[in-house]
Amino acid sequence: MDTLDPAAHLNRMRRAAPLVHNITNHVAMNPVANILLALGASPAMAHAPEEVEAFARMADALTINIGTLSAPWLDAMVLAARAAGHAGTPWVLDPVAVGVTGFRRSAGAQLLALGPSVVRGNASEILALAGQDSAGRGVDSTDPVEAAEAAAVSLAAEHNIVVALTGPVDRITDGRRLARVAGGDPIMPRVTALGCALSGVVGAFIAGSAEVFDASLAALIAYGVCGEQAAARASGPGSFMPQFVDALYGLTPDVLNRSVRVEFADAS
Amino acid sequence: MDTLDPAAHLNRMRRAAPLVHNITNHVAMNPVANILLALGASPAMAHAPEEVEAFARMADALTINIGTLSAPWLDAMVLAARAAGHAGTPWVLDPVAVGVTGFRRSAGAQLLALGPSVVRGNASEILALAGQDSAGRGVDSTDPVEAAEAAAVSLAAEHNIVVALTGPVDRITDGRRLARVAGGDPIMPRVTALGCALSGVVGAFIAGSAEVFDASLAALIAYGVCGEQAAARASGPGSFMPQFVDALYGLTPDVLNRSVRVEFADAS
Amino acid sequence: MDTLDPAAHLNRMRRAAPLVHNITNHVAMNPVANILLALGASPAMAHAPEEVEAFARMADALTINIGTLSAPWLDAMVLAARAAGHAGTPWVLDPVAVGVTGFRRSAGAQLLALGPSVVRGNASEILALAGQDSAGRGVDSTDPVEAAEAAAVSLAAEHNIVVALTGPVDRITDGRRLARVAGGDPIMPRVTALGCALSGVVGAFIAGSAEVFDASLAALIAYGVCGEQAAARASGPGSFMPQFVDALYGLTPDVLNRSVRVEFADAS
Repeated sequence: MDTLDPAAHLNRMRRAAPLVHNITNHVAMNPVANILLALGASPAMAHAPEEVEAFARMADALTINIGTLSAPWLDAMVLAARAAGHAGTPWVLDPVAVGVTGFRRSAGAQLLALGPSVVRGNASEILALAGQDSAGRGVDSTDPVEAAEAAAVSLAAEHNIVVALTGPVDRITDGRRLARVAGGDPIMPRVTALGCALSGVVGAFIAGSAEVFDASLAALIAYGVCGEQAAARASGPGSFMPQFVDALYGLTPDVLNRSVRVEFADAS
Repeated sequence: MDTLDPAAHLNRMRRAAPLVHNITNHVAMNPVANILLALGASPAMAHAPEEVEAFARMADALTINIGTLSAPWLDAMVLAARAAGHAGTPWVLDPVAVGVTGFRRSAGAQLLALGPSVVRGNASEILALAGQDSAGRGVDSTDPVEAAEAAAVSLAAEHNIVVALTGPVDRITDGRRLARVAGGDPIMPRVTALGCALSGVVGAFIAGSAEVFDASLAALIAYGVCGEQAAARASGPGSFMPQFVDALYGLTPDVLNRSVRVEFADAS
Repeated sequence: MDTLDPAAHLNRMRRAAPLVHNITNHVAMNPVANILLALGASPAMAHAPEEVEAFARMADALTINIGTLSAPWLDAMVLAARAAGHAGTPWVLDPVAVGVTGFRRSAGAQLLALGPSVVRGNASEILALAGQDSAGRGVDSTDPVEAAEAAAVSLAAEHNIVVALTGPVDRITDGRRLARVAGGDPIMPRVTALGCALSGVVGAFIAGSAEVFDASLAALIAYGVCGEQAAARASGPGSFMPQFVDALYGLTPDVLNRSVRVEFADAS
């Protein structure tokens, strides 16, 4: 990839205003919706088994997040993921705290087997989903992002998916390509649901795109630059969120393309 | 109606500090509560079948919103709506995305048949609830508000209710009267749950009022003027919400009555 | 207690970054998480019966809040509280609107019997939990905090727990000691979920502490001083929350210890 043009993905997404169906957790529902609206997408939240298949089919992308998982919601997630698979709707799996309980390990494995387009998680989650030891015990990562890079690559290669591993420097890989994406701010892990909302944003970017890796990478770059802008204007994690949503709303293609700090590595 | 006096309704509502029982969606729960508290009402969220009837009876108003509908919640909504009907508690139906799936069409029809005092929805929702074709496929309206005006009037007349159809210029009708209410700002559809929260505000205004049409109209006017104030002070949809809540909190009767931009039309 | 040193508790909590497992209501989920993250704790929300015991055992503290109670969630709360009891995980009960319906009275009694470390509630809730008459009909307190002081003391003595009764001047008691804690701002009851989030903060402070009374008192003092700072910087209840979260994030031990306005009384 000689020329990185995340702005092309942003412009395409905004023109399409994709309908993004989210089955996400109770903490993240509101910020996910606001962040998608600010960027130009159209979020819909629906989790009833009676209608998740219809939503997943009609949507331009689906995101599934197991943050506040329960058995009835897991059933709905499976229905939605299957319907997305049949309809060709791309979908993102966010395996929150997947290694922390047996219930989550089982749910994560079940959803992964249904073939998401992208998995987006922190280091502890990617390690756990790849079947490796993780130090995680809550929802916050307790493993350094470096420690999960190899697991991300093998997870992507094994399942033929894109894996976005986020942390101080994000990693994104499709098993062949590996990019390290600088951006964001150390205050971001002090604001809840930012990772969950990034999974929603990845969903918006991959909607209608044939280039899942490039579109997901564009989402990470956009998120990082807006995070930096918001942190510069905020006086703490409370004022960060309004500033961040404003930054996503006001993000211009020019600024986005000028903000690329990506390093490519050999994934093999 | 020669003299519009929305401030009288605001003053009455603030003096009463009505208890508003909301069965609303997961995205809107928090902003609905904050917006009602800022205006001077007392919100309560409860959805268990064991207690929704008690809440609906004790409350001064009930609001039902099907945004993140599920079968157990629909059962509770039906129980609450019936209890409200028996107790004389006025209630507002917010039929989010009602035309989008069979599950929602059925739920919308079932709740409408229980006799809400007010239906508040966007153009796609009002068209669908009135049994007409709508272009809606997500939760955001994809029909212009003008296209649903006639449907709002016939829906109101047929069910003997007030219909508040919101968009760039809101419509409100009881089937005989029809008012077009200017206000708000184009950024508002980029902020999630503002429509849902308006349904809560309508609930607060109609609580204890014999004039459901006038009280609902006052709610629309108040919402619009505060939306304009907030948009003028915000730098995007993220900073809009704090500003909007502050504006509702600080809204004075004088400013409200000076902000009326309502045009009456013949509904027949 | 000659020397009040809430800063020692704040420092200990921040060093430990305790994992706080919250089973809380839908309105409060997001602000509870953000407030705990801003203070330096690590929140986790999980409510599935399949995993609440594992979370309660692994967590450093558990909080249970019945705001949007339902039967399945109550089952999970009971499982989590029992597991916390067996594992020695301290836990906080927030009995939202406990006197308002039979369903809540029964749930409150059942959870209280499982032996929380701390009960945190408003005057109407503490009166109801102590079996006394309350004027409460919604979730907002309709009884003055003074009227519930004696009930708080007897509730604490009878169950051998700490009771934090919050209002314009908070009360905290273990049945022997009684402290009145000045702080906060009159705007705080106009912001939803602040009481719920305080219960989370009490959970973070009592995690790993042998002094439940002192640690809870420190939490109340910290909350009050940050509430005052936020109110001074906010222009209403909407801008309060971002300011409040920033204040919690930026709270220094020095400022905390300089802000103590506590009066001790004889509880007997």
